[in-house]
Amino acid sequence: MNDSGKVLRAEEAPLREDAYARAGVDIAAGNAAVARYRDVTSTWRHPNQLGAIGGFSGLFKLPGDDKRLLVGSTDGVGTKILIAAALERYDTVGADLVNHCVNDILVVNATPLFFLDYLAVGKLDPEVAALVVAGVQAACRANDCALLGGETAEMPGLYAPGHFDLAGTIVGIVASEGVPDPARVAPGDAIVGLPAAGLHTNGYSLARSLIGQEEWNAPFPAGGAGVTFADALLDEHPSYARAVRAIQLVADVKVMAHVTGGGLLENVPRTLPERCKAVFEQSRWSVPPLMVELVRRGALDHAERYRTLNMGVGFTLIVPLADAERAVDAWPGAAVVGWIEERRAGEPAVVVHAARA
Amino acid sequence: MNDSGKVLRAEEAPLREDAYARAGVDIAAGNAAVARYRDVTSTWRHPNQLGAIGGFSGLFKLPGDDKRLLVGSTDGVGTKILIAAALERYDTVGADLVNHCVNDILVVNATPLFFLDYLAVGKLDPEVAALVVAGVQAACRANDCALLGGETAEMPGLYAPGHFDLAGTIVGIVASEGVPDPARVAPGDAIVGLPAAGLHTNGYSLARSLIGQEEWNAPFPAGGAGVTFADALLDEHPSYARAVRAIQLVADVKVMAHVTGGGLLENVPRTLPERCKAVFEQSRWSVPPLMVELVRRGALDHAERYRTLNMGVGFTLIVPLADAERAVDAWPGAAVVGWIEERRAGEPAVVVHAARA
Repeated sequence: MNDSGKVLRAEEAPLREDAYARAGVDIAAGNAAVARYRDVTSTWRHPNQLGAIGGFSGLFKLPGDDKRLLVGSTDGVGTKILIAAALERYDTVGADLVNHCVNDILVVNATPLFFLDYLAVGKLDPEVAALVVAGVQAACRANDCALLGGETAEMPGLYAPGHFDLAGTIVGIVASEGVPDPARVAPGDAIVGLPAAGLHTNGYSLARSLIGQEEWNAPFPAGGAGVTFADALLDEHPSYARAVRAIQLVADVKVMAHVTGGGLLENVPRTLPERCKAVFEQSRWSVPPLMVELVRRGALDHAERYRTLNMGVGFTLIVPLADAERAVDAWPGAAVVGWIEERRAGEPAVVVHAARA
Repeated sequence: MNDSGKVLRAEEAPLREDAYARAGVDIAAGNAAVARYRDVTSTWRHPNQLGAIGGFSGLFKLPGDDKRLLVGSTDGVGTKILIAAALERYDTVGADLVNHCVNDILVVNATPLFFLDYLAVGKLDPEVAALVVAGVQAACRANDCALLGGETAEMPGLYAPGHFDLAGTIVGIVASEGVPDPARVAPGDAIVGLPAAGLHTNGYSLARSLIGQEEWNAPFPAGGAGVTFADALLDEHPSYARAVRAIQLVADVKVMAHVTGGGLLENVPRTLPERCKAVFEQSRWSVPPLMVELVRRGALDHAERYRTLNMGVGFTLIVPLADAERAVDAWPGAAVVGWIEERRAGEPAVVVHAARA
């Protein structure tokens, strides 16, 4: 469960209590649910279903084709949707949702094929619904992904007027031999980071507890001229597909991670072998002003920062050191943000060396 | 939009005001949303995306394979979920959801590959969530469909404690030449109906307006010994996959329809050519007791009955008359429920001849 209250079931990684709890999200319940899901789904598994690398998505052997896998992933926008609804900004959540899903299947190197969305509302306003779906459609188009269908549910007993929820499912395809293999990661490899635009779709329960609704329309000075807190809070979750494809043209990308709920501390280990740890040097990238503000207001300690927020790194790629320079030159904003080192017994899988304040 | 408040966007068929309005669902808004979606999604279409037959699901040309199509469909459980939540019956909605989706892609003859679910809750109760997901998993297994992943979102600001929403996406596959062609339907063909178990996932806004929560645990005499209104209301939406495959072994199934929101009047025409109408003889099947009760309490007129409720026919298959007897013999409960006749200008696409009360 990340701090926008989402339990990524594919992952099944236990999480720890910290800033989440302060934001009112029940970590113990999340971990218990994860454990119960594991019980429930262990009773049967379809023979074509593969264990997913890192659990960002599920892999399925395409029948009658021994060379390719289908990849599926479902996600929501989390409580970012409550900010969008309160501010009546309906055109951006579609991109948040689609891009999140695109990145989740990008981790296994999958190319998007199609997307389907689920929009649930308390009271159906056709113009609002159309704005949301237009956002989904535009983001699908930007990712060369069909918007194959969708469902809109008007359920007045379930959702308050003005409230809505948005979830979606992406399906992609990947050559079996193109799926990254964590066993290839080795000490000495470089970690290339792609910059985050903001909170993406994680950290909103915490952010809403630290930045009250009365402030949302106020200027957010650190964000630049004319930028409000709302603008910063609703910064779009980007798709990293083009960046990754550009880097793959010039570098041997061994594994990738999408830095969602759980931050660097919990997402990067999902694609590391036991014998490796990731060491990040925070001096090598910029922490977005919104996160600096949240860290200050919440007096978030080191672990809270890097487990609750992406802290400015939205996606990571591990490449051989020899390829690192070519990789960062291939995409604006890409930077070497850390290295792979040997992990000894008892050591954490991720270490972040913080920059001096 | 059907009367559980769902707008099936793939369909894009306008709906009319009647019992829906009485149940508090805004048909005008639904139709306006459908029209706006059409505008929004007409701006771009992925080249591999095909027009769906009847709109029950979306079709996508599998890249690098000119013989097969992927099929996707997203759905929710509608306001049936509010009854399940109020009665704390969490184990059945998974089957409702999965089977609904299986039937939606069955219409284009697709075989399920995998399913992903989205469970959103106000307050995460791990046992409740596990019961819901166990229901999803069991229904997936019964349909030989992988449960490839899922997302659980705890969003206290959006859902009331005890409330939850459940949606899901199915992906299937079909040989291009196996997709039913409405042009093959001809006057003289027989319509084979498969029996509905109850309301399935449609009609719940109406049902809840006619059968108040105070009655749910009361005996429902027409339902048999020990049956409560709740039992009847929560009757599981069945999967018609095995029935359809059994009938296809002995009969030339030309087209199929899943009788969801919109009933026989709006679902069957989705797979008929312009020159054909479907004529149903209600004396040829039994209307389930719950629907008899709803018709009586709501004094539903003919059009309301057959547009709001499935009235006992959950799925239809159109076969040549010569195959009709073999078809109904192939599956218990299957019956010839009507015929295809020539449709003249100005005639409706569906006529239901009601049995005498």
